[in-house]
Amino acid sequence: MSSSDIFFGETIGTAVLILLGGGVCAAVSLKRSKAFGAGWVAIAFGWGFAVLTGAYVAQVSGAHLNPAVTVGLAIEGTTKWADVPLYFACQLLGAMIGAVLVWIAYYGHFQAHLTDPEVEPLKDANPGPVHGVFFTSPEIRNAAQNLATEVIATFVLVIAILTQGLTKGVGVSGIGALLTALVVVGIGLSLGGPTGYAINPVRDLGPRIVHALLPLPNKGGSDWTYAWIPVVGPILGGAIAGGVYQVAFA
Amino acid sequence: MSSSDIFFGETIGTAVLILLGGGVCAAVSLKRSKAFGAGWVAIAFGWGFAVLTGAYVAQVSGAHLNPAVTVGLAIEGTTKWADVPLYFACQLLGAMIGAVLVWIAYYGHFQAHLTDPEVEPLKDANPGPVHGVFFTSPEIRNAAQNLATEVIATFVLVIAILTQGLTKGVGVSGIGALLTALVVVGIGLSLGGPTGYAINPVRDLGPRIVHALLPLPNKGGSDWTYAWIPVVGPILGGAIAGGVYQVAFA
Amino acid sequence: MSSSDIFFGETIGTAVLILLGGGVCAAVSLKRSKAFGAGWVAIAFGWGFAVLTGAYVAQVSGAHLNPAVTVGLAIEGTTKWADVPLYFACQLLGAMIGAVLVWIAYYGHFQAHLTDPEVEPLKDANPGPVHGVFFTSPEIRNAAQNLATEVIATFVLVIAILTQGLTKGVGVSGIGALLTALVVVGIGLSLGGPTGYAINPVRDLGPRIVHALLPLPNKGGSDWTYAWIPVVGPILGGAIAGGVYQVAFA
Amino acid sequence: MSSSDIFFGETIGTAVLILLGGGVCAAVSLKRSKAFGAGWVAIAFGWGFAVLTGAYVAQVSGAHLNPAVTVGLAIEGTTKWADVPLYFACQLLGAMIGAVLVWIAYYGHFQAHLTDPEVEPLKDANPGPVHGVFFTSPEIRNAAQNLATEVIATFVLVIAILTQGLTKGVGVSGIGALLTALVVVGIGLSLGGPTGYAINPVRDLGPRIVHALLPLPNKGGSDWTYAWIPVVGPILGGAIAGGVYQVAFA
Repeated sequence: MSSSDIFFGETIGTAVLILLGGGVCAAVSLKRSKAFGAGWVAIAFGWGFAVLTGAYVAQVSGAHLNPAVTVGLAIEGTTKWADVPLYFACQLLGAMIGAVLVWIAYYGHFQAHLTDPEVEPLKDANPGPVHGVFFTSPEIRNAAQNLATEVIATFVLVIAILTQGLTKGVGVSGIGALLTALVVVGIGLSLGGPTGYAINPVRDLGPRIVHALLPLPNKGGSDWTYAWIPVVGPILGGAIAGGVYQVAFA
Repeated sequence: MSSSDIFFGETIGTAVLILLGGGVCAAVSLKRSKAFGAGWVAIAFGWGFAVLTGAYVAQVSGAHLNPAVTVGLAIEGTTKWADVPLYFACQLLGAMIGAVLVWIAYYGHFQAHLTDPEVEPLKDANPGPVHGVFFTSPEIRNAAQNLATEVIATFVLVIAILTQGLTKGVGVSGIGALLTALVVVGIGLSLGGPTGYAINPVRDLGPRIVHALLPLPNKGGSDWTYAWIPVVGPILGGAIAGGVYQVAFA
Repeated sequence: MSSSDIFFGETIGTAVLILLGGGVCAAVSLKRSKAFGAGWVAIAFGWGFAVLTGAYVAQVSGAHLNPAVTVGLAIEGTTKWADVPLYFACQLLGAMIGAVLVWIAYYGHFQAHLTDPEVEPLKDANPGPVHGVFFTSPEIRNAAQNLATEVIATFVLVIAILTQGLTKGVGVSGIGALLTALVVVGIGLSLGGPTGYAINPVRDLGPRIVHALLPLPNKGGSDWTYAWIPVVGPILGGAIAGGVYQVAFA
Repeated sequence: MSSSDIFFGETIGTAVLILLGGGVCAAVSLKRSKAFGAGWVAIAFGWGFAVLTGAYVAQVSGAHLNPAVTVGLAIEGTTKWADVPLYFACQLLGAMIGAVLVWIAYYGHFQAHLTDPEVEPLKDANPGPVHGVFFTSPEIRNAAQNLATEVIATFVLVIAILTQGLTKGVGVSGIGALLTALVVVGIGLSLGGPTGYAINPVRDLGPRIVHALLPLPNKGGSDWTYAWIPVVGPILGGAIAGGVYQVAFA
C-alpha cells in the first residue's frame, strides 16, 4: 500500500466519518435543527452510517479511520508497524477537517444555540450539547469505569473487524464495511450509555482540538482532564483484541 | 446505454424515488396519517429506502436519479457528456410524476390538513408541513451557510457513489444500491438538520413546480427565492466530488 | 417447481410473515406489551423483517407470500398461470395460521386489552388497536383514494421485485429477500399513512376471517364493507407493475 | 470442527452477544445513561446487532451462541450430538462472562440506579429495570401463554436459520449473520411484547446466575420460579423447527 493511498484514504475517509458523526450530534442536539430531539437511535445509526460512508471512501487505504483499528491490525499482522505513524497522522488530520466541516454545515445553529439567552451558560462539569458535537464526556465521572467502558467497547469493535477477515470476500470491499457499520450501531446502542463511546482516539482528540481553536461564542472549556481516557482506552481495547484474536482465532 | 433505457430507467426510477421520499414527508407531517409524528428517524430511513427502491427500478440506466450524480459520473468519465441532457430531462419529469403520485396517495390528508381551522394559515416565512412534502426549506435562512450545507452533503453522497465503483461486484447491481441507500440515511441523520438535505436538484425543483401547479387549497407560495440553492448546491457538490475522486482515488 | 414445494413454502412462509407482521401490530398497540407505544418506525421495520423472515423460509416456492406478487410474476412470465390457484390457496391458509399464532402469543394481552374498563368499547367506525392487529383500516374513508393508495403502494412493491430479477445473483437467494424487505420498510414509512398498507390481499383477508371466527370478547365487527379494497387494490397494482415491467424493462 | 474452535468461538461469541444484548437493556433502562428512554426500537436493534457481532466473532464454531440453535442443527444433522454438551457449556460460560462485562461497563449506573432514593425498592413481583438487564420477565404471568410465546418465537428463529442454509454462499460467512441478526430484530419487534423474548436458554440463565452472585445493592430476588420457561420454551421451539425443516424443506 502506497503512502499516497494511505494519505488520501485515511484523511478523506476520516474527515467524512467525523463530518457525519459530529453532524448527527449537531443535528440531534442543536436548537433549530430539523432533527432536534431525534434521540439515541438517531445518534447510533448516524455514527454507524458515518463509518459505512467513511469506510467506502477509504477503501484504498484499508479503511482503518481509527488508531485502535490500526493497532489491532498491526498486532494481528495485516498492517506494517512502519506505516502506523502515517496512519495516525492522517486520521488525526482527517478528524480535524471533519470537525471544521460540521462547524460550517451547522454554522448558524451553533451561533443560535450558544447565544440564545434561554441556553444556560455552559460549564465544564456539565458540558452541554455543543461540547457533545466535538468530544465525548462521561455521564458519571469515574476514571476506572470510564476507561473500562472504552476498553470493552473498542475490544468489541476490533475483534469484530478482525474476525470478519476470516470470511473470504468479506473484507473492506464487498459487505465488510456494512457489517462493521452495523457493529458500530450496536456498540452505540449497547455500550454508549456511560461515556458516549469514543472507541476511536482521533474521533475524540481531533474535534476536541478544533473546539479549542474555533471562535465559538460562550463555548466553555474543552475538558482536557478527561481527554486521555478516550485516547488510552481505545488503544488498549484494540491491542487486547489483536492479542485475543491471535490466541483464539488465528 | 440506449436512449430508451435512460428514458425508462431515469423517469420511472426518479418517480419512485420522489413518490416514496415525498411520501414519507407526508406520512410524518400530515394530520390523520397513521405515521403522524414518527419523527426524523422515519424521515431519514424513508428517504434512504426511497433511493434503494428507485435505484433498483432504474438499473437499466445506471440509476443516477439525480443530476448531481450524473455530473459527478460525467466528470469521472463513466457517463458521456452527450447523454447528460437526456438524464436531466428524465429526472425532472420523473420527479414531477412522483410528486403528483404523492398528492394522489395522500389526497384526503392534504385536504384535511389544509382546510382544518386548527392549522394556522401557511406563510412563506414558515412554510409548514405541506410545503415540506414538496420542497426543502432552511431552518435558518442564510444563503452562504445553506449553500455550503448542500455542497458538503452532496459531496459526501457523490464521493461515496464513486468510491463504491472501486469494489468489483459492487456496482448498481449487487449491494451497491443498498450501500448508497444507507449513505443517504446517514446524510439525512447527520447533515439534514439545517436545510432538509435536497442533495438532488430535481428532488427539490420537480415537486416545487408541481406544488405551484396543483389545485391545493390554502397552499401558500412555492418559495421561489430559495429554489436556486438546492439546485446549485448539489451540482457544485457533485462536481467537486468528481474532481476529488479523479485526484485522490482514480 | 413441485406442488409440495409450493405448499410448504407458501403456507409456512406466509404464516411466518403474518405472525411477525400481525405480531408487531399487537406489540405496539396492546396494553401491557413491553413494546407498547413504540410507534410507526417499529411497525414499518417489523413488517419489513417479517417479509425477510418469511421469504427465507419460503425459498423453495420462490417466496411470493402475496397474491399480488404471484400475479405480477405470472404476467411477467416467471410463474405459470396453472400454479396461481395453488399459490393463492396456500397464501390464504398461511395467513390464517399466522393470525391464529399471533392470538396465541398475545393471548393474555388481547384479554387484558378487550376487557379493561378503561378501554372504550370498540365501534366499527373507529376500530381500535385490536382490529389493527388483524386487518387494515383507512384513516379517512374514501374508496377512490384508498384504492388508489393501495394500487400505488403495491405497484412499487412488485416493480421493485421484478427489477431485482435483472441483477444476476440477486434473486430470492442471496440478498434479494433483504432488498425486498427494506423496500417494504420504505413503503410502510412512506405510503402506509392513509390505509395501513395492506399491499397484499391475503395479509388483510386471512386475518380478517380469523378475527370474525375467534372468540375474542368485545371484539366488534370485522369491517367487511372495506374488505374488498385491500384485495382488489393490490391485485391491480401488481398487474400494472407486471405490464409496466414488460414494456419498460423486459 | 475441533473442540478448541467450539470453545473459543462459542465462549467469546456468546460473551459478546450478552455483553451487547444486556448492554442495550442497561443503556435504555438505567438512570444517567445517555440512551435512557430510547425505547423498544433501540432494544430490538441492539439485540439484533449483538447477534450480528457475536456471530461474526464465532464463525470458527459455526456461531450457534444458543442451545436452541444447537438442538435445531443437531436434529437437522449439521451438528453432531456428541458435540452438543460442549456447545451448551461454552454458551453458558460465555453468557455469564458477558453479563459480568455489562456490570463492569455500567458499574456506576447500577450503583446510582439501585441506591437512588427516588427508585422504589425492587420487588420480585415487579422486577424493574435492573432485573431486565439480566433476565427476562413476562408482563402477564401465565405459564402456558409465556411458554407458548417462547416456543413460537424460537421456532421462527431456528426455522429461519435452517432455511438460510438452503442458499449457497449464505451460511454464517457472507451475509448469513446479517440476515439472522435482522430476523432477531424482527422477532424482538413482533414477538417480544409478552415475555421479553429470551429465545435462547443461556441468554436468560447465564445472566440470572450472575445476578444472583453479584454484590449489587438492593438487587431483589432473581425470580427463579420463572427461570424454567425461557430454558424449556426455546429448546422446544428449536426442536420443533428442526423437525418441521426435515419434513417440509430438507
